[in-house]
Amino acid sequence: MAAGPLETILNPSSIALAGASNTIGKMGTIQMLNLIDSGFPGEIMPVHPRESEVLGKKAYPAIADLPFAPELAILVVPTALVPGMLEDFGKLGTRHAIVITAGFKETGEEGRDLESRIIEIAHTYGIRFLGPNCLGVVNTHLPLNVTVAPILGYGGGLSLASQSGTYIAQTVQFLHRNGIVLGKAISVGNEADIDITDCLEYLGQDDHTKAIGMYIEGIRDAGRFLRVARRVSRRKPIVAQYVGGTEAGARSGSSHTGAIAGPDYIYDGLFEQAGIVRVGTIEEVYRTGWALATQPQLKGPRIAVLTNSGGPGSGIATTLNAAGLEVPEFSDAVQEQVSQYLPGHASARNPVDLTFHIDMEALTVKIPEILFSADEIDGIIIHGIMDTGFMDLLYPSVSKHIDITQEEFLKYGEISLDELLAMPGTHGKPLLISSFFDESDHCVQLFHKGSIPTFDSPEKAAKAMWALYKHCLFRQRNASPPAKRARGMIPAQAQEIFSSRSRAGMDEYAAKQLLKAYGIPATEEFLAASREDALKAAHRIGFPVAVKACSPSISHKTEHGLVFLDVEDEDAVSRAFDTIRAYDPDTPVLVAEMLKGKREFMAGVSYHPGFPPCVMFGLGGIFAEAHQDFAFRLAPLSREDAREMIDSLRARAILGTYRNMEQVDLDALADILVRLGDIALDFPGIKEIDLNPIIIVGGAPKVADSLMIIP
Amino acid sequence: MAAGPLETILNPSSIALAGASNTIGKMGTIQMLNLIDSGFPGEIMPVHPRESEVLGKKAYPAIADLPFAPELAILVVPTALVPGMLEDFGKLGTRHAIVITAGFKETGEEGRDLESRIIEIAHTYGIRFLGPNCLGVVNTHLPLNVTVAPILGYGGGLSLASQSGTYIAQTVQFLHRNGIVLGKAISVGNEADIDITDCLEYLGQDDHTKAIGMYIEGIRDAGRFLRVARRVSRRKPIVAQYVGGTEAGARSGSSHTGAIAGPDYIYDGLFEQAGIVRVGTIEEVYRTGWALATQPQLKGPRIAVLTNSGGPGSGIATTLNAAGLEVPEFSDAVQEQVSQYLPGHASARNPVDLTFHIDMEALTVKIPEILFSADEIDGIIIHGIMDTGFMDLLYPSVSKHIDITQEEFLKYGEISLDELLAMPGTHGKPLLISSFFDESDHCVQLFHKGSIPTFDSPEKAAKAMWALYKHCLFRQRNASPPAKRARGMIPAQAQEIFSSRSRAGMDEYAAKQLLKAYGIPATEEFLAASREDALKAAHRIGFPVAVKACSPSISHKTEHGLVFLDVEDEDAVSRAFDTIRAYDPDTPVLVAEMLKGKREFMAGVSYHPGFPPCVMFGLGGIFAEAHQDFAFRLAPLSREDAREMIDSLRARAILGTYRNMEQVDLDALADILVRLGDIALDFPGIKEIDLNPIIIVGGAPKVADSLMIIP
Repeated sequence: MAAGPLETILNPSSIALAGASNTIGKMGTIQMLNLIDSGFPGEIMPVHPRESEVLGKKAYPAIADLPFAPELAILVVPTALVPGMLEDFGKLGTRHAIVITAGFKETGEEGRDLESRIIEIAHTYGIRFLGPNCLGVVNTHLPLNVTVAPILGYGGGLSLASQSGTYIAQTVQFLHRNGIVLGKAISVGNEADIDITDCLEYLGQDDHTKAIGMYIEGIRDAGRFLRVARRVSRRKPIVAQYVGGTEAGARSGSSHTGAIAGPDYIYDGLFEQAGIVRVGTIEEVYRTGWALATQPQLKGPRIAVLTNSGGPGSGIATTLNAAGLEVPEFSDAVQEQVSQYLPGHASARNPVDLTFHIDMEALTVKIPEILFSADEIDGIIIHGIMDTGFMDLLYPSVSKHIDITQEEFLKYGEISLDELLAMPGTHGKPLLISSFFDESDHCVQLFHKGSIPTFDSPEKAAKAMWALYKHCLFRQRNASPPAKRARGMIPAQAQEIFSSRSRAGMDEYAAKQLLKAYGIPATEEFLAASREDALKAAHRIGFPVAVKACSPSISHKTEHGLVFLDVEDEDAVSRAFDTIRAYDPDTPVLVAEMLKGKREFMAGVSYHPGFPPCVMFGLGGIFAEAHQDFAFRLAPLSREDAREMIDSLRARAILGTYRNMEQVDLDALADILVRLGDIALDFPGIKEIDLNPIIIVGGAPKVADSLMIIP
Repeated sequence: MAAGPLETILNPSSIALAGASNTIGKMGTIQMLNLIDSGFPGEIMPVHPRESEVLGKKAYPAIADLPFAPELAILVVPTALVPGMLEDFGKLGTRHAIVITAGFKETGEEGRDLESRIIEIAHTYGIRFLGPNCLGVVNTHLPLNVTVAPILGYGGGLSLASQSGTYIAQTVQFLHRNGIVLGKAISVGNEADIDITDCLEYLGQDDHTKAIGMYIEGIRDAGRFLRVARRVSRRKPIVAQYVGGTEAGARSGSSHTGAIAGPDYIYDGLFEQAGIVRVGTIEEVYRTGWALATQPQLKGPRIAVLTNSGGPGSGIATTLNAAGLEVPEFSDAVQEQVSQYLPGHASARNPVDLTFHIDMEALTVKIPEILFSADEIDGIIIHGIMDTGFMDLLYPSVSKHIDITQEEFLKYGEISLDELLAMPGTHGKPLLISSFFDESDHCVQLFHKGSIPTFDSPEKAAKAMWALYKHCLFRQRNASPPAKRARGMIPAQAQEIFSSRSRAGMDEYAAKQLLKAYGIPATEEFLAASREDALKAAHRIGFPVAVKACSPSISHKTEHGLVFLDVEDEDAVSRAFDTIRAYDPDTPVLVAEMLKGKREFMAGVSYHPGFPPCVMFGLGGIFAEAHQDFAFRLAPLSREDAREMIDSLRARAILGTYRNMEQVDLDALADILVRLGDIALDFPGIKEIDLNPIIIVGGAPKVADSLMIIP
């Protein structure tokens, strides 16, 4: 199904590699060694100026000497040599490359120039390439491996795209001992050409890839990333770590791959919108990624927990509950079934605790069978299955009293997990295993062979179940992307308001007129040129009114005493008008409806490098800055994006029938946010938009004040 | 230094064990095997009705037949036999016991009765005991081991007290492969006699214990726990997991050890107050506990991060920043020193990234020496040190091209870490290591031997550094406990108000009078028996005033229209008075000062089983329930407890000079909370106290309404 440059880069029929020699220890040599030993089925042609043979393969003194254009070129040569060699490959007819070499954009001015040169060369010859400053790719299905580490497991369903090469090439032993098997893995380096979004798109189409794990320091085109991820996550789970959101994280990323990071909350919004399960550690990318790649979809939040000990059971249950999943007390029917396999004092309520008097058949077959069959349960976590790991611990003592070899003793304890391993597939429910043992335990080995994820502490299994649930929620939502809007859909009136703004920018009145042109409700208001106008307006609106100076050139109106709220009568209107005119005789005066409502929110648009305009929604009122209760989504927003960002406020209870207030019209509120995004996209000249406050009047949101800055 | 029953239980000179036989596989037998093989230096005497010898030790048919009273009795016998055997040991003169046997309180009514019986027997004979329903103890320093697993490492500084036996006895392989060595470990089971607080007190005094790890499902006397933990945490780090705070967690704990759990936020307050580092997983109890036990104290928040890869560096930096630690950009001087060991394109700013071109001497000696010596740095995390783990991965490929045995090849790559291992001690700064390798890497082995904590993913090392920082903050605070108050310190006036309450309880006026007797500022107010009284009061206070029905027997006053705010003039006062009297002719009418202030808070006291009264402080105002921004502390509170709980509000910015408001008098606010705790302790008859709202007037907090319920 997959096509494009990455399909070729990950499945080349022939490879030329420049930078390997017969000196073991050099990076390029190690990579060529791994390329050969991974079992790559195609041709491998080293390029070396002096050696006639490199690592047993015929070597060519120059690229021009190669017998034919290899499908893939790999460069692990000094930085200065890269442009020339890339050009030589271009001339030969090679159209795909991986530039491992570092020393480009990430090092400063000179490196940036050099990177521009290789981009130019690639354009000239139509070369698509990964890197520079990357650690290569792995495809365990072909197999192909050009990294510095060998492949330790073949044919897995978890694929990776990473802005750190380490997470592709330096964690293989960690992954292997945890039973995690990769499918494809791509180190993107500086993303001079192919970027992490291309990888995501490719892996989304790749049939071998069942789940995608990502490590991200910064995304250069977040709009495209969002569009791609939205599509992919509807079919395939994506789990990602983002590390650029703090000062030190951003500094580290920029030294590393020159990535431009953005604030953490922007990525929170992006990932939610894109349907990406966000995790905070690389371990979770791997472990929850493996759970997502191997287990049937979790269809609901109801988890059964089965253990041989109360401690792990409580840890799992607490972690699940805290993450929003349920550990429901079993129905009487299920409790009764389970009870028959329990010792007298053990609990059958959920968590099921067999206590230390373990009956391994109950723990691995009988009770799991009941739980997998129960309609009231969506997923299962088991802790406490073990055999040789524990036996091994006992052997030194036991062997002093029984004449038995270690091998016999361990063999004696080995149990079969065939029935349990089949249950997830048969019942279509996920199974996660918690065990403090490593592969020295034969059961852990069996789980690894059977592609059942094991977690070396109980709470991690619970956290991975949360990831399955998060993906389940993403799938369940109506993930229709935002409605496509043609450029011609800009309301004529809005265009006119925007065009006729003064040189100083856009005033409050114009801003609200623009909002109204998009159907966003705002206060009824009039611009008054005279005191009489102001009084007429006040009567038309009805007292009390607000009277404000209305000019983009006066900032801090409130501080200057140019905003009058709750103006109750004609005298007060006149006084307000006069005060404003005394400050500036030319300032238009705005007479506006006073909105009365206790609930205040705010919305806005913020702008970040590499991102489309980001719509913000948050709690308003004078204490808003202290609460920091807000959410972001990238424009354009779908209706559901808007509803979800509203729902994500900590204090969302305020939106309901809170203290006998009216239910807020959430659709109307969502409309405001969707349209706000449209405005930002339609008028890229605007560089800041604030709707603050949005006051809830009788359940309906209405904009009381608005600011648009056009530099 | 340590004494008491646990000192004897963990260091007995002789042990009698009932429940072991020669049948390998039974729990008691496994425990006796481990007791023998751990190298316990004292006498071991099995009690067995039929065997003359058990596991090579002379057995005694009955307890009465033992040649002398053993210092410690261990029972692993059927539940029904426990009372009789405990009594026999008592008669013989044994005064310490561990009851492993389960089937007591945790199983229901009958079990509870049985547990009461063994408590009675213990009292009669002066026996102090652990359990029932526990998994025993370990003392790797003696050594002594009565658990089901062997000791794999001796003489460590991390000691454990756990309400789950699994975390003492079933994680030894996990601990061992992560280089974690326990000192003492105690499984407390149902805590019929010795409880987890006794363990904490004991471990606090134990010289071998450098840090204490705890697993908690519920604490039965939280007040005592707090007093003990406060003392211990000033000298010794404590790290704890609490799992009872969710519905399923509480259910699980109650099935397990019969623990009564409390809401999570109460434990949050307790742990903060006690100086306990709270973590969410058992893995963190172990790993951060090990860091706390082995590393010098972290003295400040400034962490240097040194890696061979940008990915782990960014992950560590981001995690540290997010946790409130600093990854400061190095001074020019330090950058210059570091730079000489870096390849051209690597960053010396912090994180230091050596990139893949690793110079192991730079990574393990040269740069660490600079960082440890730099005054601007308080602690160091290094990722990327490795030798044989990586070599081992390469060997299969390399061996095809070079004639070298695996052993020779690995030996060739081994590096020395002697200098690095000495640095934390020499410089008095902590060092934490991140490595994806396990002990198959010789460097990881060296770190384990050298008691330097290793973490199998970068963010975990950062999280442990946070724990060190948290403990540093706990030590830095002025941890003076609450001032001792004698019973006689109850203000006479308060006693009188409380005593003269009506049968229906305490009304708002009396409640505020009581507050005032404790020096808590509340509104000026008067009870009016007549319309004239009301008017006189209003004039004395000054308009506007509040007029309210004042009776403990009328609830929902606002809903019944019996609360009038902002009452502006005489007419309005009269109308309000008449309305209240029309509802109930006998109700006293309260005329009170109207407090004007935008900032509202609330405080209160809540009551939980096993806990002293808990003082709550939180954001007030009509949206308080939606914000859920509050903190709890156990009474009595110290001034610092009160200041810390105020500081822990998310929206604490409101307390400052927020939007040109006056700085809130935090001492006055803290005083209110301290005194509120005193009131709750002085009057245990009160079962609910609410101070809501507390309004800030010109920076000073004042109670506007108060409710006290006395059932």
